[in-house]
Amino acid sequence: MANNFSIAIHGGAGTILRSTMTPELQTQYEAGLRDALDTGYNILASGGSSLDAVEAAVVKLEDFPLFNAGKGAVFNNVGGHEMDAAIMSGKGLEAGAACGISHVKNPVKLARAIMDHSEHVILCGAGAEQFARTQNLAFEDDAYFYMEQRYQQWQEALKEDKVQLDHSDKKFGTVGAVAFDLQGNLAAATSTGGMTNKKFGRIGDSPVPGAGTYANNSTCAISCTGHGELFLRCVVAYDISCLMEYKGLSLKEACDVVVYDKLVKIGGEGGLIAIDKLGNIEMPFNSDGMYRACRNSAGRNEISIYRE
Amino acid sequence: MANNFSIAIHGGAGTILRSTMTPELQTQYEAGLRDALDTGYNILASGGSSLDAVEAAVVKLEDFPLFNAGKGAVFNNVGGHEMDAAIMSGKGLEAGAACGISHVKNPVKLARAIMDHSEHVILCGAGAEQFARTQNLAFEDDAYFYMEQRYQQWQEALKEDKVQLDHSDKKFGTVGAVAFDLQGNLAAATSTGGMTNKKFGRIGDSPVPGAGTYANNSTCAISCTGHGELFLRCVVAYDISCLMEYKGLSLKEACDVVVYDKLVKIGGEGGLIAIDKLGNIEMPFNSDGMYRACRNSAGRNEISIYRE
Repeated sequence: MANNFSIAIHGGAGTILRSTMTPELQTQYEAGLRDALDTGYNILASGGSSLDAVEAAVVKLEDFPLFNAGKGAVFNNVGGHEMDAAIMSGKGLEAGAACGISHVKNPVKLARAIMDHSEHVILCGAGAEQFARTQNLAFEDDAYFYMEQRYQQWQEALKEDKVQLDHSDKKFGTVGAVAFDLQGNLAAATSTGGMTNKKFGRIGDSPVPGAGTYANNSTCAISCTGHGELFLRCVVAYDISCLMEYKGLSLKEACDVVVYDKLVKIGGEGGLIAIDKLGNIEMPFNSDGMYRACRNSAGRNEISIYRE
Repeated sequence: MANNFSIAIHGGAGTILRSTMTPELQTQYEAGLRDALDTGYNILASGGSSLDAVEAAVVKLEDFPLFNAGKGAVFNNVGGHEMDAAIMSGKGLEAGAACGISHVKNPVKLARAIMDHSEHVILCGAGAEQFARTQNLAFEDDAYFYMEQRYQQWQEALKEDKVQLDHSDKKFGTVGAVAFDLQGNLAAATSTGGMTNKKFGRIGDSPVPGAGTYANNSTCAISCTGHGELFLRCVVAYDISCLMEYKGLSLKEACDVVVYDKLVKIGGEGGLIAIDKLGNIEMPFNSDGMYRACRNSAGRNEISIYRE
């Protein structure tokens, strides 16, 4: 049992600058983050589990059209939406993940169903969608995922034959949540719509336990957002856990080593949200900005976008 | 530069008992292991890279019909073959992986092409096959992958509506190789045909950098075989690397902690092959047997199947 609880969420990192944001848009982003944060916080405050809190917060972020996950997922190379999500429980190291799925309204709910009701950890593509149907999860048609702005982004990417990461407007569209509950359990969840114009069934770090998503009651819970290939090669989330468990670093020290040193050296732009087994929160990033928010039972309550 | 070199390979772990093996079959398995081992060894002996050695050894294991990878891949739930593979270079932490692919003759070659010629780490399904065509990799039709014994295994699994892991004849069909070359570079590769009667596009640990496959010149190279879901949740390969780097354990000590303690506690049956940055070899497993072999420049040259 713990005598405190906390939650942190993110809506992606990247080149997010005050100079290119309108006050109206900023208000919308902040409202989306606030809604997701409070949804998760209220579950924790009423004694709910960290797993339920991160799932509910990520559902809100997936339903919010401005973040690249669920409803707001970007267009892939053939004009569809291919999404990935993962969830992990720090109590027993249970994990569930779905990759390359289309038309599933809330990919994080599918990840949770895979964790709770399948004998597997990662399910992929049509097979994952088939499993989602056995779980009576909601499906949506292409119209639900259509957004004019995303369509224009795709058309521009198509013209240049580039994926989003090559654009000057570099954003790593991912959402995620980590939480620590009154039972002392940690949990993490991540969801993404991938990269605009992505090809070849590319999978990033988001749905990979240990890379983009990880939770372990003996150390921490982590959800990442950034250049997925480099986060995969660095096994970022589990690296932070190992630096704490094997080297005795604090959560902040471990985050600093990974985000500001190891990832920077390999060219890995992005950030992450993290909570340790005492409920401490860290939200480090080495990019210009990261949509982020956190709230705990001691009264901390923040929403931020830019570096300063 | 190093003044020695070494290689280790595996053809899967599980319930492999002397009592259920015929002398003829054992001779065939040993010949398959010998061929792959010597192929990799000869590349290292002539000054070739550990990456080329592990790729060539795994190609041999994929082409050998008795191992569950490439030609010998088991049937999935709809009578097809869905394969996964990964390769990783310890020098720069480069990695490539393919999941859920069909008809690609040598999945490890696709993993290598993804590492060398794409901007991504993991490609999945039809997209991965499409990328394979751009690289002019060999494709084979269903007849190439058809084996009477695998078909009968599938028919029996279908009757019981079980995946292979539920069978009393528990085998974790995977092949892999790790190597240390005269330039001092480590590399690892893993390839699998998955589980008989597998459904829902399940992905195990094999193609996941950090879980079933990992290489890092500052610690070790690892290729795993076992109950993939548990190896994923334990991030097995990177855990061994972290125990060495952050806790100062030797390769043998780190392998012992993970294979005989952590995995056993969570019910994770299987094993792995490992080489550290000095060329030391370990081949631990907690199951009844593991098809395995190793050879180094100091004259060690072993092929083994059973526990004793």
